[in-house]
Amino acid sequence: MMKRQSEARAPLSDYRPEHFQLAVEGAIATITLDRPEKKNPLTFESYAELRDTFHALRFDETITTVVVTGAGGNFSSGGDVFEIIEPLTKLEAADLHAFTTMTGDLVKEMRACPQPIVAAVEGVCAGAGAIVAMASDMRVAGEGAKTAFLFNRVGLAGCDMGACALLPRIVGQGRASELLYTGRFMSAEEGECWGFYNRIVGKGEALASAKDLAGALASGPAYANSLTKRMLHTEWAMSVDAAIDSEAIAQALCMKTADFRRAFEAFAAKTKPVFEGN
Amino acid sequence: MMKRQSEARAPLSDYRPEHFQLAVEGAIATITLDRPEKKNPLTFESYAELRDTFHALRFDETITTVVVTGAGGNFSSGGDVFEIIEPLTKLEAADLHAFTTMTGDLVKEMRACPQPIVAAVEGVCAGAGAIVAMASDMRVAGEGAKTAFLFNRVGLAGCDMGACALLPRIVGQGRASELLYTGRFMSAEEGECWGFYNRIVGKGEALASAKDLAGALASGPAYANSLTKRMLHTEWAMSVDAAIDSEAIAQALCMKTADFRRAFEAFAAKTKPVFEGN
Amino acid sequence: MMKRQSEARAPLSDYRPEHFQLAVEGAIATITLDRPEKKNPLTFESYAELRDTFHALRFDETITTVVVTGAGGNFSSGGDVFEIIEPLTKLEAADLHAFTTMTGDLVKEMRACPQPIVAAVEGVCAGAGAIVAMASDMRVAGEGAKTAFLFNRVGLAGCDMGACALLPRIVGQGRASELLYTGRFMSAEEGECWGFYNRIVGKGEALASAKDLAGALASGPAYANSLTKRMLHTEWAMSVDAAIDSEAIAQALCMKTADFRRAFEAFAAKTKPVFEGN
Repeated sequence: MMKRQSEARAPLSDYRPEHFQLAVEGAIATITLDRPEKKNPLTFESYAELRDTFHALRFDETITTVVVTGAGGNFSSGGDVFEIIEPLTKLEAADLHAFTTMTGDLVKEMRACPQPIVAAVEGVCAGAGAIVAMASDMRVAGEGAKTAFLFNRVGLAGCDMGACALLPRIVGQGRASELLYTGRFMSAEEGECWGFYNRIVGKGEALASAKDLAGALASGPAYANSLTKRMLHTEWAMSVDAAIDSEAIAQALCMKTADFRRAFEAFAAKTKPVFEGN
Repeated sequence: MMKRQSEARAPLSDYRPEHFQLAVEGAIATITLDRPEKKNPLTFESYAELRDTFHALRFDETITTVVVTGAGGNFSSGGDVFEIIEPLTKLEAADLHAFTTMTGDLVKEMRACPQPIVAAVEGVCAGAGAIVAMASDMRVAGEGAKTAFLFNRVGLAGCDMGACALLPRIVGQGRASELLYTGRFMSAEEGECWGFYNRIVGKGEALASAKDLAGALASGPAYANSLTKRMLHTEWAMSVDAAIDSEAIAQALCMKTADFRRAFEAFAAKTKPVFEGN
Repeated sequence: MMKRQSEARAPLSDYRPEHFQLAVEGAIATITLDRPEKKNPLTFESYAELRDTFHALRFDETITTVVVTGAGGNFSSGGDVFEIIEPLTKLEAADLHAFTTMTGDLVKEMRACPQPIVAAVEGVCAGAGAIVAMASDMRVAGEGAKTAFLFNRVGLAGCDMGACALLPRIVGQGRASELLYTGRFMSAEEGECWGFYNRIVGKGEALASAKDLAGALASGPAYANSLTKRMLHTEWAMSVDAAIDSEAIAQALCMKTADFRRAFEAFAAKTKPVFEGN
């Protein structure tokens, strides 16, 4: 069988990133932004390493679900003022574009990797941190989590890393507009009511809840879930009829998987299916 | 006047489908999935007959609104395990694609027929049953209705019959993602809160409520409503400016209808307009 | 520096429209539909003058935020029956299309001007009035505000001035369908719950609340906010990846503004940034 994982690549479970924690437990990889004394800011180096790690996830078929979280009671404060913003004020146009291309590529890689991503959000989730949460497939908030797309507070536009496309489809155009124009914090309760969070749990319990959800996904049919993710992405701006045609092909392919047969056989035998992701 | 209904076609009121009930009362056609002992599953035959019936609705101008429901306290359990799933596990790729094309064509016909469709949902509404509800224009739930896009429970992807395009626009991208990745049931209350259901009524009262809503639509301007439906479909992936231009043409056409004149004359005479759908 | 405002154009603060009130206070322009004895209907003349005023806003860089409201406790009753609808029943096709092009162009101008628009809605907000509220970027409702896209009540289609594209992205496809097919009123509470209104305030307090929100925007980075608005519009029907690429360029441009530098300097000096919109 063809391995997605090339010989040349180490499995992610052997990988030790420099700028965040990466833990692989079974089929679930957990990425922890981990510089709690500064609320886990993003830096030039961590952006690049995150982008490359999500890219590498395309090739590690042993991992079927990803959890993203932050250490020390906060998700992420976003781009650090002195480590990111100050240097940006001194760059030339082409270098600025290289930077925004890198940050945008992080979101592209998060949407392109085959694993559904669950964000576990506690405390502050701001700027590029809010984008990482938004670019995940699902989101769990611990009580008191505060999310802000605060770009306009630092003189920037709300159009950062895809926010003007993604946020309106998650919370609606009017609510997204307010969040992007004002940069104000959205409470966990607002976020759940508006569909940004899939659930709110007690303060400090977001990671456990996200891992529960990830565990449920990881016990599901991994290849089929990766097709769901791919089609949610691909059909974003398709006509309804084109989307239906695309799904007819994708689902026919999925009906040729062994997991589909396994599910039928388990049902006929009145047992629970054990999916193998092929 | 040109009739949409060709001489060669019998009116739908004379039609007796084999695999579901079809009742025409005035301008409202009610389709009832009717095999209550198995919770009204869909079969190869019923998919095809539903597709053809929605196609025929294009040509019967006496029918202006459609209600879809299920018999015996459930909407539909979706594709039957032994009648659909087992045979699918044995088909070749091209035949699988023919099957998914047929099921996708059912949704295309539901979106293409000129009549707004109201789904009356009670009890179980799962798999392809949830798709039929989703592909309707509006949805009424009886208390306790449970809806699941449970494709991944049987080893399939969530991209079935347009779900990855349609569901995110109804309930938002984050909630749709959870429903499609997990296959979990959405309660009637969640469905109303998230915009999947237009209203919840008492258990057993969904059909009556859906008929009330259909009756309100049927007393409205049928041709105008069909244009609303067509434009909701056509503008799905258009730019805002292109959508505005398309609506300028469509609404100008609508201003040439007799129904528009009738509405003005009724208003001037302080009476209620009687629309005739032309 | 290049002025967006041409020499040939008077500043909007000197402009005295015939068909509505225009007040400029600092960077905020407030447009008040003002014919309260008829609930501020739109007429052929006011449509054209509104369209031209929103067009002129492109060129007046002293104005960074717009508030739209109605006088006398109502927002707007929409197109007047005897001043708009009756004459329309007598027009030829090309003239009807010219009319719907004019009304659509009002929405296009509202979406194209660089200033975010906040609608302050009290009382009746119906037909084309509801469209003007919908075409704004954000909306504040006074308690008791009632909004209806009542086109089908006068024999027309819901596809008016972009409603079939815009409304589903604000409140979801199912709720938008109901509002457009039935023409029923949406309460202020429904509107807030569904994301149409950003907030509800006490009856009679919508304008003050909208001005507060506009004031917050006006103290923000005006050029950056105009880019947010432009990208929310431009990315409407783009793929996610194309949207991310577009934002990478737009945000890099924004990082070359003096406002971005001002924000950093203020942060470093632990003061509040004073943005100048460049």
